[in-house]
Amino acid sequence: MTNDAEELVRARPGSDETDIYDENGNVRGDFLALVGAAIADRDTIFLRQNVTRLHESEIGDLLESLQPDQRVALVRLLGDEFDMTALTEVDEAVRREIVDQMPNEQIAAAIGELDSDDAVYILEDLDKEDREEILAQLPFTERVRLRRALDYPESSAGRRMQTEFVAVPPFWTVGQTIDYMREEEDLPYSFTQIFVIDPTFKLLGAVDLDKILRTKRSTKIETIMRETNHPIPAEMDQEDAAQLFEQYDLLSAAVVDENDRLVGVLTIDDVVDVIHEEADEDIKRLGGVGDEELSDSVFSTVRSRFLWLAINLGTALLSASVIGLFDGSIEKMIALAVLMPIVASMGGNAGTQTMTVTVRALATGDIDIYNAGRIIRREAGVGIANGALFSVIMGCIAAAWFHNYQLGFVIGAAMIINLFAAALAGILLPLLLHKVGADPAIASSVFVTTVTDCTGFFAFLGIATWWFGI
Amino acid sequence: MTNDAEELVRARPGSDETDIYDENGNVRGDFLALVGAAIADRDTIFLRQNVTRLHESEIGDLLESLQPDQRVALVRLLGDEFDMTALTEVDEAVRREIVDQMPNEQIAAAIGELDSDDAVYILEDLDKEDREEILAQLPFTERVRLRRALDYPESSAGRRMQTEFVAVPPFWTVGQTIDYMREEEDLPYSFTQIFVIDPTFKLLGAVDLDKILRTKRSTKIETIMRETNHPIPAEMDQEDAAQLFEQYDLLSAAVVDENDRLVGVLTIDDVVDVIHEEADEDIKRLGGVGDEELSDSVFSTVRSRFLWLAINLGTALLSASVIGLFDGSIEKMIALAVLMPIVASMGGNAGTQTMTVTVRALATGDIDIYNAGRIIRREAGVGIANGALFSVIMGCIAAAWFHNYQLGFVIGAAMIINLFAAALAGILLPLLLHKVGADPAIASSVFVTTVTDCTGFFAFLGIATWWFGI
Repeated sequence: MTNDAEELVRARPGSDETDIYDENGNVRGDFLALVGAAIADRDTIFLRQNVTRLHESEIGDLLESLQPDQRVALVRLLGDEFDMTALTEVDEAVRREIVDQMPNEQIAAAIGELDSDDAVYILEDLDKEDREEILAQLPFTERVRLRRALDYPESSAGRRMQTEFVAVPPFWTVGQTIDYMREEEDLPYSFTQIFVIDPTFKLLGAVDLDKILRTKRSTKIETIMRETNHPIPAEMDQEDAAQLFEQYDLLSAAVVDENDRLVGVLTIDDVVDVIHEEADEDIKRLGGVGDEELSDSVFSTVRSRFLWLAINLGTALLSASVIGLFDGSIEKMIALAVLMPIVASMGGNAGTQTMTVTVRALATGDIDIYNAGRIIRREAGVGIANGALFSVIMGCIAAAWFHNYQLGFVIGAAMIINLFAAALAGILLPLLLHKVGADPAIASSVFVTTVTDCTGFFAFLGIATWWFGI
Repeated sequence: MTNDAEELVRARPGSDETDIYDENGNVRGDFLALVGAAIADRDTIFLRQNVTRLHESEIGDLLESLQPDQRVALVRLLGDEFDMTALTEVDEAVRREIVDQMPNEQIAAAIGELDSDDAVYILEDLDKEDREEILAQLPFTERVRLRRALDYPESSAGRRMQTEFVAVPPFWTVGQTIDYMREEEDLPYSFTQIFVIDPTFKLLGAVDLDKILRTKRSTKIETIMRETNHPIPAEMDQEDAAQLFEQYDLLSAAVVDENDRLVGVLTIDDVVDVIHEEADEDIKRLGGVGDEELSDSVFSTVRSRFLWLAINLGTALLSASVIGLFDGSIEKMIALAVLMPIVASMGGNAGTQTMTVTVRALATGDIDIYNAGRIIRREAGVGIANGALFSVIMGCIAAAWFHNYQLGFVIGAAMIINLFAAALAGILLPLLLHKVGADPAIASSVFVTTVTDCTGFFAFLGIATWWFGI
């Protein structure tokens, strides 16, 4: 055992020292080796001392860094002391793998300890049968709460909310409220505001904790509450809820049912996860990969990428058939075959640039009907300007390469046409997809490169055929 | 004036009704028209009633939706009642345009009202001379605070922190602390925890407000404080700070100087902005566009995209020269010219898929030296599997299209080679760029497509030349 590793292991329980990571933010190799050896030796004492003291997200990272068989063994060895919250911090594939190996009784016991949003996060992945068996083993009130959250649609605010909150009537004083919080045992694990409700649980307002602390004990709650705190309908999509949080810098927000009754609270930490998932989704869709995660199997990855590649094959055949139209010209002037991919490739890149900006602007709501016209004109201008520049550059290169200045004119003309087409396709196709309700991130790139490939080949080979009369 | 618009305008001041947006989340056209008309008429009464009641982010959206000359006019007409915080919610180009037109005295007066993090956000964009002039007009303590924050490097936690916070000594009781907060006038606008410091401002710990509210008045603060709250060094990059927030679900964190003295507090709303900016940056870099924003001018956009297109032209010339090696073969068999872009395009897409997953995994820290080997093997497997599938499919298509089954074998072989190369390039190039300290998002896609274009053309034309002996 190295000195560093000794120090790491001796770190006192309960401290949240983050020294399980190396300087790159990966779980340290010596720590992984120690844990691996302890799992092999079934050394529960070591594991309980050194794993349970970690933060839930650190345990999550540890689980992801271990081998699949080690993960399940670790959870078994920790038994009751395994913090199920860690499972909300790992990839879905890893979570399923671990949960599938746990007996339902253990899951039920562990879920009883969790905040409701974490419990729902784990339960929603299980198949119906297991879920019902686990729910049946929970106390009545908890079962009702969780079932209500699970009844809301997937990816809704109702699924992500925490059903534990502090709510008081409007006629209470600040003093009464503070006394209540001092005496009540069953409060949420942490909270930043309390809600004000009427006897039917209808939401009247909210008060931030700092406001309560600054106010005299005799003041009535109703005089310091904010009337509206952007209550979020439980059915609202989590993305829309996240946008409200961002726009109004919220830390938490009340979730209400269709009768404006308070049913839960959505907190910023869940919203941060949503923001991350959304950005992740956009990046992956632009890159032509679906919801895949690194822990997915080879088989499921092959399957999910196959469709995208098949669509691309279709569009590649389309552009190849454009080339096929001009096979006679190419036969007579082989330089055309050498140069044609350059025109297509430059168009593809310019189109991708414009498309990226447009897709991003649509995702963040920065583009609307009032500025769309201005942005289209701007992109067309950029396309023409860069088209003109590269038309001259590539014209000179081609003329020098094949000792044929006329070929330079031809490729220059094709280049400016294709970069202009690229700009238009890059902005109009995502706008069109958005307009018809499709996600512009998912399909734009294949459409844009189809346009630029076909335009590039057709313009270059067509102009050459006409110019040289071949 | 339509009924809807009347209702909108009549909404009582101080309410935070969000009805300035239409169902797509854009600022409503009728509201824009009303504001535009009021600006033209210099109707300050209307503007003060209907614009100042809005949330800062709504004023920001309104400013972005107006024409450039209207923006400056609106800010002038609102005068003292213009909430400078709105400027933290708009694009940099819009902010500069407005601030440049404001007299320094007005900026100084407005900045005095802002939280320090918002003040720094606006000051850091100004040129040195204007900044000094504005700072000189501020009260001493505020000037010192802001200057200290501005001294930290750009994009550091010190720049983003708020210098207002509540700090108490460890020997105070909960009761004393609450009484202090009730009496003290000069508290931050909102806060979720208080810090515990020694007489030299050294950070000892922190206590969440809910903990204070749950605890008896006689309890000493030191007995309920958490010993460490992931204090963030002021020099730390904002990205790293954001990762700490995400990992440990923080709402706010102490920012300390090199002597562990408390200098400020970083809050989750700023971190959410950082997370957004980072995701934005990754998406734009993958798409080959730099830091551009929709409000940038045509000229600056052309310039920023030119470099990327120029690099792409270089790589396109490289792949064209690979084709040039085989011009004799193409002349003898024109089908090669028609089919060769298909092999390159499929490789480019497969490579982009793998690269997207890798770049994203690097950005979120999901890939490390312990699982890199496993992931490389997985990607190679996916490449071979999809390569084999598309090798058969494309082989059959080519054989049928050109009535030449041998051509089918040739393109099939080239396809499997290129999809395997694509998988390796897609994972190894980003890892390599990351290893040498470059941002994998910025350069991976151009390198990956260079590999897949060159490999695709070389494999297909090379095998054909050898097979058919041409």
